[in-house]
Amino acid sequence: MSKETTGIPKGTRDFTPDQMIRRNHIFDTITGVFMQHGFLPIETPAMENLSSLLGKYGEEGDKLLFKILNSGDFLRGLNPADLTELDPGPLSMRICERGLRYDLTVPFARFVVQHRSEITFPFRRYQIQPVWRADKPQKGRYREFYQCDVDVVGSDSLLNEAEMIQVADEVFTALGISVTIRINNRKILAGIAEVIGAADKMQEITVAIDKLEKIGMEQVMEELISRQVPAEAIDRLQPLLQISGTSREKLDQLESFLGASETGLKGLNEFREVLDFLSGESLTSLVEFDLTLARGLDYYTGAIIEVVANDMKMGSICGGGRYDNLTGVFGMEGVSGVGISFGADRIYDVMEHLNLFPDAAVHTTRVLFIHFSKEDVIYILPLLKEIRKAGIHAELYPDAARIKKQMTYADSRGIPFVALVGEEERKEKKITLKDMRSGEQKKMDLGSLIAELGK
Amino acid sequence: MSKETTGIPKGTRDFTPDQMIRRNHIFDTITGVFMQHGFLPIETPAMENLSSLLGKYGEEGDKLLFKILNSGDFLRGLNPADLTELDPGPLSMRICERGLRYDLTVPFARFVVQHRSEITFPFRRYQIQPVWRADKPQKGRYREFYQCDVDVVGSDSLLNEAEMIQVADEVFTALGISVTIRINNRKILAGIAEVIGAADKMQEITVAIDKLEKIGMEQVMEELISRQVPAEAIDRLQPLLQISGTSREKLDQLESFLGASETGLKGLNEFREVLDFLSGESLTSLVEFDLTLARGLDYYTGAIIEVVANDMKMGSICGGGRYDNLTGVFGMEGVSGVGISFGADRIYDVMEHLNLFPDAAVHTTRVLFIHFSKEDVIYILPLLKEIRKAGIHAELYPDAARIKKQMTYADSRGIPFVALVGEEERKEKKITLKDMRSGEQKKMDLGSLIAELGK
Repeated sequence: MSKETTGIPKGTRDFTPDQMIRRNHIFDTITGVFMQHGFLPIETPAMENLSSLLGKYGEEGDKLLFKILNSGDFLRGLNPADLTELDPGPLSMRICERGLRYDLTVPFARFVVQHRSEITFPFRRYQIQPVWRADKPQKGRYREFYQCDVDVVGSDSLLNEAEMIQVADEVFTALGISVTIRINNRKILAGIAEVIGAADKMQEITVAIDKLEKIGMEQVMEELISRQVPAEAIDRLQPLLQISGTSREKLDQLESFLGASETGLKGLNEFREVLDFLSGESLTSLVEFDLTLARGLDYYTGAIIEVVANDMKMGSICGGGRYDNLTGVFGMEGVSGVGISFGADRIYDVMEHLNLFPDAAVHTTRVLFIHFSKEDVIYILPLLKEIRKAGIHAELYPDAARIKKQMTYADSRGIPFVALVGEEERKEKKITLKDMRSGEQKKMDLGSLIAELGK
Repeated sequence: MSKETTGIPKGTRDFTPDQMIRRNHIFDTITGVFMQHGFLPIETPAMENLSSLLGKYGEEGDKLLFKILNSGDFLRGLNPADLTELDPGPLSMRICERGLRYDLTVPFARFVVQHRSEITFPFRRYQIQPVWRADKPQKGRYREFYQCDVDVVGSDSLLNEAEMIQVADEVFTALGISVTIRINNRKILAGIAEVIGAADKMQEITVAIDKLEKIGMEQVMEELISRQVPAEAIDRLQPLLQISGTSREKLDQLESFLGASETGLKGLNEFREVLDFLSGESLTSLVEFDLTLARGLDYYTGAIIEVVANDMKMGSICGGGRYDNLTGVFGMEGVSGVGISFGADRIYDVMEHLNLFPDAAVHTTRVLFIHFSKEDVIYILPLLKEIRKAGIHAELYPDAARIKKQMTYADSRGIPFVALVGEEERKEKKITLKDMRSGEQKKMDLGSLIAELGK
């Protein structure tokens, strides 16, 4: 064994206890809402066969897959000529059969097909696991990060769209983040492109109007021109981008405009149905029809959902939508679904920036016992067991060190209470409890100590 | 996108909801005990630099590392001759810089060194993450599996050994598994080898006596002979293997025998100290001095701990020990520690075999609402919110399908209660609750329903 310098691969992270406690708060909150809604957990392996992953994320995505070198003699079956003549791309396929998952959607699709006979449909599942992408690391973009996905598949019902909005609302309410839930519908976008006479330019149009908030109307118009959207179509589009009012008012304004497009009207009606379902609900979050929202268009077929924080500019912290053919690529047709995914890293950054994390102390040690002799330890250990049974996180400093050293440990760990036991306390069957913030200390019996710490 | 057959890499697993709920029960129980003891969570990346991993697990271990192909042009900097002349081993090092972690110990050591300035020592950490090994898959052995490690580093105190025994006892008590916690001490083994005049044969002796329970005394003797342990040493060893009684009685019997070995006596005294610490405790598990226990001898320097289930033959389901130099390999000397690791997969198998998992229903949906119209939905959704707020997992079937179809869904999901809402219920502001097991149904208001489901 040689001595090594320490470090981790670029774009990956260690999580220290402080970070983990905060991250777990986010994951536990999300999981709690998922479970209240009866979503069921699954997990899939970190590695998938490359044949399951390739071609699912476009050419760019294929390049971002981490490939795992075959074990043992990975050159077996290759000629010297293969090694020197093949490009890295094709050669990598000869020496790697597996890759790390790139998202949770494709593994989920594979899972549904593989386990179709065991699954009760509609299948309500959640999955919280890391994914890996060989992206260029930069601020806020990592090569390993967690996704938290929740989906209902095997049901066309628009109730599922409504539930995704509820789930997002409940998660962010529980986390204390004030958010706007933006909604759009791909069919409305398709209808607009159709009606303005540019059905073949839908992609270009949506990419351009998606930037409206960021770059303003004038530059969006310029971009539409440069993307060769006909001038007449642009003229008809512009007023639509300026409609305002509540979601229902916007939908009403669009209705006459979309009258000629069956697809467009279908999108409108889907949207209204979702709003109807939610009409008895009091959501904490703002729900807003946003015509410019155009994420995942090569994927989503109906509702498109995106959540942004109201008090910090950060991009979307949650998003998703309706898709019509999750599993077709694995040979199982007709499985429609809707799902959203929570971005744990961005949620973390928002909460840290807005100081929304609860006092970490409640999750870590509440009381440190310190001792001076072996007899103290034998007296303390059974007490500790009772304290822990009462749900109080407690530990014992492992050495009969000088009191100052033991106190310093409590201090740098941020432990709020220290319990001292010495000869006197043992005789009296008491414990001296010191409040580290006030400095106050009091001798008491075990029952009182548990009551005091349980406050 | 081409259609694919589905499947996952050999030795990896999907976890279905039923399995996940059971696995989460195990992980949550373990985490709960760790947290009660004030252990702090950390996480490290799935990928480590190969330079951090290689040489840490022996030659065999190096071969079992999953290596990740460098992204982009992984052939850059290689000559055609390198490709055709290098063996797979050296070539793999030229085209792979990263590997998947093989255990949690080496990443933990790396973490401690890298974050030494932020860490408060003694550092009490736990870590629950998957690891990957390119082992030949077989029953009970996977290429991806979770480890659950808990350690205290930066402290020599034997109290930490005592705490590991408590932690194991509390975890298995909480899981309902009756276990024996076997303990030995490497120094005692070294002392015995010394005293019988075969100090240079310690490894051979321990490997042989480790098999005592499995193959019996006669075959152990034969193995010792074949491993060239001198006959005189074997003669002196044999009576030791037959000592019996409580742990303290065994230690007493060994004492005079080990009198000539300073190391051996040190081991005895360490052992007694741990027993003294625990003397005020009432552990649920059997704690047993087992002289033949010899796991991790190239690693552990003091206590060796192993836990086995009493009611099922399964090998160890938890194990660990004291190590003296965790971080030396990363250039930081003198960090001693003690830790144990829980084998989640084996624990799962034991619990399944002994039927120890609690009723899964408590973790999944408790009530399914079924409906017949949009008006029903608008009436139901706010009720659902209240029910979930009361901590009851609840869902709404997404389609106004025939009642039989909705009931069948509840049935195949194992949901114990179904709530029906129709026109009548809406008018009366009531809900009809049906117990799926008894078939009984009753109309009630929201408060009574929450009370009924909360039982």
